[in-house]
Amino acid sequence: MTTDAIAAMVADARAAFGDRIVTTDADRIAPWLTDWRGRYHGISAALFEPADAAEVAGVVALAGRHGVALVPQGGNTSMVGGATPPADGSAVLLSLRRLNRIRQVSDGQAVAEAGVILQHLHEAAAAAGQRFPLTLGARGSATIGGLVSTNAGGTQVLRWGNMRRLVLGIEAVLPDGTVHGGLAALPKDNRGYDLTQLLVGAEGTLGIVTAATLRLVPAIAERAVAWAGIADPQAGLDLLRRMQAATDRIESFEIIPADTLALAVAHLPGARAPLSGQYPWQLLIEAVAAPGELPPAPLLEELLADGVEAGLVADAVLASSEAQAEAFWTLRDSLSAAEKSTGPAVQHDISVPVDTMPRFMVEAAAAAEARFPRTHATAFGHLGDGNVHFHVRAPVGADPARWYAEDAPVITRFVHDAVTAAGGSISAEHGIGQMKRGELERLGPPARLAALRGIKSGLDPLNLFNPGKLVSLAPRSANP
Amino acid sequence: MTTDAIAAMVADARAAFGDRIVTTDADRIAPWLTDWRGRYHGISAALFEPADAAEVAGVVALAGRHGVALVPQGGNTSMVGGATPPADGSAVLLSLRRLNRIRQVSDGQAVAEAGVILQHLHEAAAAAGQRFPLTLGARGSATIGGLVSTNAGGTQVLRWGNMRRLVLGIEAVLPDGTVHGGLAALPKDNRGYDLTQLLVGAEGTLGIVTAATLRLVPAIAERAVAWAGIADPQAGLDLLRRMQAATDRIESFEIIPADTLALAVAHLPGARAPLSGQYPWQLLIEAVAAPGELPPAPLLEELLADGVEAGLVADAVLASSEAQAEAFWTLRDSLSAAEKSTGPAVQHDISVPVDTMPRFMVEAAAAAEARFPRTHATAFGHLGDGNVHFHVRAPVGADPARWYAEDAPVITRFVHDAVTAAGGSISAEHGIGQMKRGELERLGPPARLAALRGIKSGLDPLNLFNPGKLVSLAPRSANP
Repeated sequence: MTTDAIAAMVADARAAFGDRIVTTDADRIAPWLTDWRGRYHGISAALFEPADAAEVAGVVALAGRHGVALVPQGGNTSMVGGATPPADGSAVLLSLRRLNRIRQVSDGQAVAEAGVILQHLHEAAAAAGQRFPLTLGARGSATIGGLVSTNAGGTQVLRWGNMRRLVLGIEAVLPDGTVHGGLAALPKDNRGYDLTQLLVGAEGTLGIVTAATLRLVPAIAERAVAWAGIADPQAGLDLLRRMQAATDRIESFEIIPADTLALAVAHLPGARAPLSGQYPWQLLIEAVAAPGELPPAPLLEELLADGVEAGLVADAVLASSEAQAEAFWTLRDSLSAAEKSTGPAVQHDISVPVDTMPRFMVEAAAAAEARFPRTHATAFGHLGDGNVHFHVRAPVGADPARWYAEDAPVITRFVHDAVTAAGGSISAEHGIGQMKRGELERLGPPARLAALRGIKSGLDPLNLFNPGKLVSLAPRSANP
Repeated sequence: MTTDAIAAMVADARAAFGDRIVTTDADRIAPWLTDWRGRYHGISAALFEPADAAEVAGVVALAGRHGVALVPQGGNTSMVGGATPPADGSAVLLSLRRLNRIRQVSDGQAVAEAGVILQHLHEAAAAAGQRFPLTLGARGSATIGGLVSTNAGGTQVLRWGNMRRLVLGIEAVLPDGTVHGGLAALPKDNRGYDLTQLLVGAEGTLGIVTAATLRLVPAIAERAVAWAGIADPQAGLDLLRRMQAATDRIESFEIIPADTLALAVAHLPGARAPLSGQYPWQLLIEAVAAPGELPPAPLLEELLADGVEAGLVADAVLASSEAQAEAFWTLRDSLSAAEKSTGPAVQHDISVPVDTMPRFMVEAAAAAEARFPRTHATAFGHLGDGNVHFHVRAPVGADPARWYAEDAPVITRFVHDAVTAAGGSISAEHGIGQMKRGELERLGPPARLAALRGIKSGLDPLNLFNPGKLVSLAPRSANP
């Protein structure tokens, strides 16, 4: 039945648009059927590649007519299988990569289509003397549509917020095939429910984002990067609070335990620890200056000296050159890879209320190690956001395949239970996708789950937009 | 049928809670059946007054069981009939006024229940050395639940945003009777749709807000208030842009046409125009300093001098005392009353894209006066928000009753057409309620209207939460 429906939809699309926007060529479809980490595999008999919002609306209308589900996909960089089609072949891929125009860069905002690669937006903003202040490792392939639809975060959330705070307006195709033209960012508009914020983080289950109006901020003229040694995470949070009370120019504040840092130093050729002394926890701090602002280095130096005086900082060093600043960041960015090089590890993208994060980092790690003997638990991350990267490494000598299949899921449930008990979230940045849907159903507050289902069924009653991701509805009763 | 259902619901409530939370005493109910301006009148056979979220949930569960619709009400200060029950007696009033505790005031945030009066929150924040930066004329009676549910604005939106930006978390009872406990404001939480922002501005049609976590900002240690004369609104916007590029401490920036100002000066006993010269447009500008910041007066003086030099400002004066600053604001706050004292006038709460506001103010006023001879159209308001107060005064000698009944609605449709053509919103601050529902249906983009209906029907399939406000569903098919 599904096969027939897809074939009919493809035929209609060819009749309407020619061969240009749809392919059934298995070789061309294949790269998009597996997520980038190779964990999820799906089947799609067709790949739709419209070039503008009107063509997206056309594809959505055809999908509705034939009862075929659509899986929107941008850069295919989901961490939770959010852009991989279902394995039963019941859906088709809808790529937004051809919607790749930056429609406008003006003072303080940009309008970018869904398929624009993040790095291209960075470059366009920079060319206009401005900055789009959200960045992450996948910036060379992640696209605006995906970043909007997953409410992406990154390393600069501390000052500028996640995608939710940077999206001023959205253009999207809704499940009924209409185009929601919400790009004009009216500062005051009280005509009912906030569709913009509803679509941010909806993982393509409520609308296909085709373009977004995004906030730009002043370019960075200069940055200062420091490394500091502290006794415990609470000292780090106290230091951050002091710094934030004194300035709004702190852009990053990362906390790293000494043993994980040691792994990274050992893993990276030619790397060395920024501080010679031994400190159980270390901080990477970046302050910036926009053009015309006072240079950030003296400011950061003064703030660190104040931290030393307050008994919060044991030692600190300011990067003396841009190359050294880069070296500091390279260490930070190597933590996950360094950990993985030592053997199997399971990672968790979680968050807890900011004030409780210092205690959680210490206590949850100890609890995990006690509960799962010979594992090694590490918590690091964005201290100001309550965002913990919580990694648990397998016992030395564990068989990877068996450990991933049998032990890792138990550990993950243990960590998610701890997060939930702490009033936190089992997804800080990466979303739910297909990876965490079961855990969300297990742990999500019933009121929230019911609300998610209500919204989904109200806007997408046929469950045609990214089915099986984020929230599950009862299976569709019938194919047409 | 409805009468029986309400009687059964009241009996169940008495059985469950005693007489404490429900009354059918017509004298006690009467004050809440009419909106504060006396424009909308409703009927409600019962008034429910629960004292906490659990009791609200209990009332909602009873409403669901008996199929009785609920009209939530706080301070009853809606400008659009949003809190007045329907005239057919099919709904009952749910007052949130007894949920009046401020649960917490901590550094940077407060948790206030729905029935907390805005001014009480101002006082509690001030007592803690902080400030809740949203204020408006009705602050002595408007409540937090209503302010959240209408995404209220006010005079300080320029710097701090409307309610949507100040709400960090929400506790609400959903139509299925579950309590959404979303007060803990996690900076990073990607567990699906943003229920907090969905409930902000939903006018009680999706959930009964019982408490909110709200952002607090530094207290004002000192303020500087200036009055400036300019040639046209574009000069005002250019001046604002220059000031905003130089500082983030401008809190208010109001534009007023000379003839409306003259009305206010004449209307207010003892008032005088701040500037002696004649300038077609005038500005009220306020800059502030938090404790420890440099005083705002020299800053504002310098910014105004820069504006004079740039040819944007013709003349300007800084209030020399707090009393004079108050006098400036009193003039601004008297504009509407002064206008009304001259005869019938119809007012519109609209917004347009900020960049187009200067042109819109001039052109739409001219167009309205051309289309409706002998009327007088005035546009003033919050220049930085694109929020125009667009008033049209009746011809001198017009019969008020006839003019309000026959001419005013035609004028309103004309104004709304102009706003829509300009890409603006027919509701900037006040919401839709029952007053603008027909206009929203007439002018709302079909995609938006369909989305509003989809969300509403998905979350409140029985249409029991504030029916007839904001968005209309098909009438309920049957009573139980």
